Amino acid sequence: MGRPDDVSALVAEAKEGRPRAVARLISLVEDRSNRLREISAALADTSGRAHVVGITGSPGVGKSTSTSALVGALRAAGRRVGVLAVDPTSPFTGGALLGDRIRMQDHATDDGVFIRSMASRGHLGGLSASAPQALRVFDAAGCDVVLVETVGVGQSEVEISGIADTTLVLLAPGMGDGIQAAKAGILEIGDVFVINKADRDGATTTRRELRTVLGMTDRPEGAWTPQIVMTVATKGEGVEDLVTQIDAHRGHLEASGELDRRRHARVRREVEALALTVVQDRFEQHSGSVDLDDLADQVLAGSTDPFAAADRLVADL
Amino acid sequence: MGRPDDVSALVAEAKEGRPRAVARLISLVEDRSNRLREISAALADTSGRAHVVGITGSPGVGKSTSTSALVGALRAAGRRVGVLAVDPTSPFTGGALLGDRIRMQDHATDDGVFIRSMASRGHLGGLSASAPQALRVFDAAGCDVVLVETVGVGQSEVEISGIADTTLVLLAPGMGDGIQAAKAGILEIGDVFVINKADRDGATTTRRELRTVLGMTDRPEGAWTPQIVMTVATKGEGVEDLVTQIDAHRGHLEASGELDRRRHARVRREVEALALTVVQDRFEQHSGSVDLDDLADQVLAGSTDPFAAADRLVADL
Repeated sequence: MGRPDDVSALVAEAKEGRPRAVARLISLVEDRSNRLREISAALADTSGRAHVVGITGSPGVGKSTSTSALVGALRAAGRRVGVLAVDPTSPFTGGALLGDRIRMQDHATDDGVFIRSMASRGHLGGLSASAPQALRVFDAAGCDVVLVETVGVGQSEVEISGIADTTLVLLAPGMGDGIQAAKAGILEIGDVFVINKADRDGATTTRRELRTVLGMTDRPEGAWTPQIVMTVATKGEGVEDLVTQIDAHRGHLEASGELDRRRHARVRREVEALALTVVQDRFEQHSGSVDLDDLADQVLAGSTDPFAAADRLVADL
Repeated sequence: MGRPDDVSALVAEAKEGRPRAVARLISLVEDRSNRLREISAALADTSGRAHVVGITGSPGVGKSTSTSALVGALRAAGRRVGVLAVDPTSPFTGGALLGDRIRMQDHATDDGVFIRSMASRGHLGGLSASAPQALRVFDAAGCDVVLVETVGVGQSEVEISGIADTTLVLLAPGMGDGIQAAKAGILEIGDVFVINKADRDGATTTRRELRTVLGMTDRPEGAWTPQIVMTVATKGEGVEDLVTQIDAHRGHLEASGELDRRRHARVRREVEALALTVVQDRFEQHSGSVDLDDLADQVLAGSTDPFAAADRLVADL
């Protein structure tokens, strides 16, 4: 593959906004290459300027189309945009389903847009382990906004609120989303709710149901009130309103001090997750005197129990 | 609340099959009470006889009804049955959605059936941290089969295959399940696929699509071939076939040695997850000389990076 990657040169190029360097660094981050630590160190002084917007919702609500429309609106306003598409990958295959990323190719030749996909592997820490490094790459490249889109299945929906400054929850009329959303806990993570396909039957019903459910939630004094925006992403309708609400939420976060709190909590979780990964690696490499397989055998034989076995593993660190 | 729980007395009563003791122990396990270690120790010598059957699938496919129908069929065959309903709980509220557990009340007065719900909280380890202890309680109570049902959203679908001997994946016609199932990775975890609501339009199409997808999967020599069963759970149709396939899979697991391998891997993961929880607790209690909040501040200030911070946290253990 040619000369080995020079991390500091790549970071310098990324800071000049070179797409190839951004792409290469994110690939290195995603592969959890042995250069990840080096990349992390080289990115330590990035500004954290980029506003991270998480986009989630059930399959079929139009997340890709909405992301693409948002990119268009943000570019029209002269903002530099990063897109990180997180694919829910089975822990068994490691393969990513890219689905309908095709639409994003509208923006493929725009040098103010960086688009990367990343697999959310079944590792401990999931998104929290590699996505923050990818976000730092976009930040280093001068992005004003980074859109993080998940294919909405399960855990990742909630995880995304842990890495985003602003979380968009997309719904569509007539998908029974009122109830389904509640089940997945995504009503609690949405800062801005987007009812996409708002030209379809049932859009106003969905909005009414959503307002009712959101109205029942107790919020602390001074907290952000989640907003609802109606869009037809395929036609670009409502997308300006959506940008306005995203900016309003950002403004609220800054004015209230909540942005600093969220980012502190985010980094705290990241450091903790990385530390746990380091510990897990030690357990797996049975570098100590206690072997995890032996402990499992002893539990199966009934000669110890899982908690006692865990204590022995930790004591051996 | 009367006298404090005497764990060894409760375990003795559970071994006699007393429902109250089973229920109380599982509540103690779920609450992660400080008696969890004591319970774990008291259950160390359980036999592991119970066959653990995981039941997963998207919302609306009829998991509760199928679970109830399975209980009926297993009871008719004279088997003692445990049911553990795992609810996907938002990490933000801690509240469980019990939904349509009502149907299970058909079995509420049968002393050969133990039914408990458990919240799958947003903790590290999720299911893997408390469900195994609950399964040991059912095992101690002499259950031949334990059905573990998740409300199918996301991660828990894959997690369930980590605690089950046999995993049932439920689909229903006309829900676009072919594609959705592939996205969630559940095609890879199913030992037996159940097309429920098989009296509806599209059932044979769903079966054909499923056969095609399953046929494309490479399997090692001698591996189990996932089976497809058509059911109408509300009428009990196909449920006998389903029991037959579950038993066939169990037979395959035993004959091939796969049962022992799966159980070893399961206990190994359990011990590791518990050990990581112990480590995480230490990080959170900042018992050492390095404080996680200070490290997060240093990362935000750009004076260190997350990996270096994580290394310092681990070194401080």
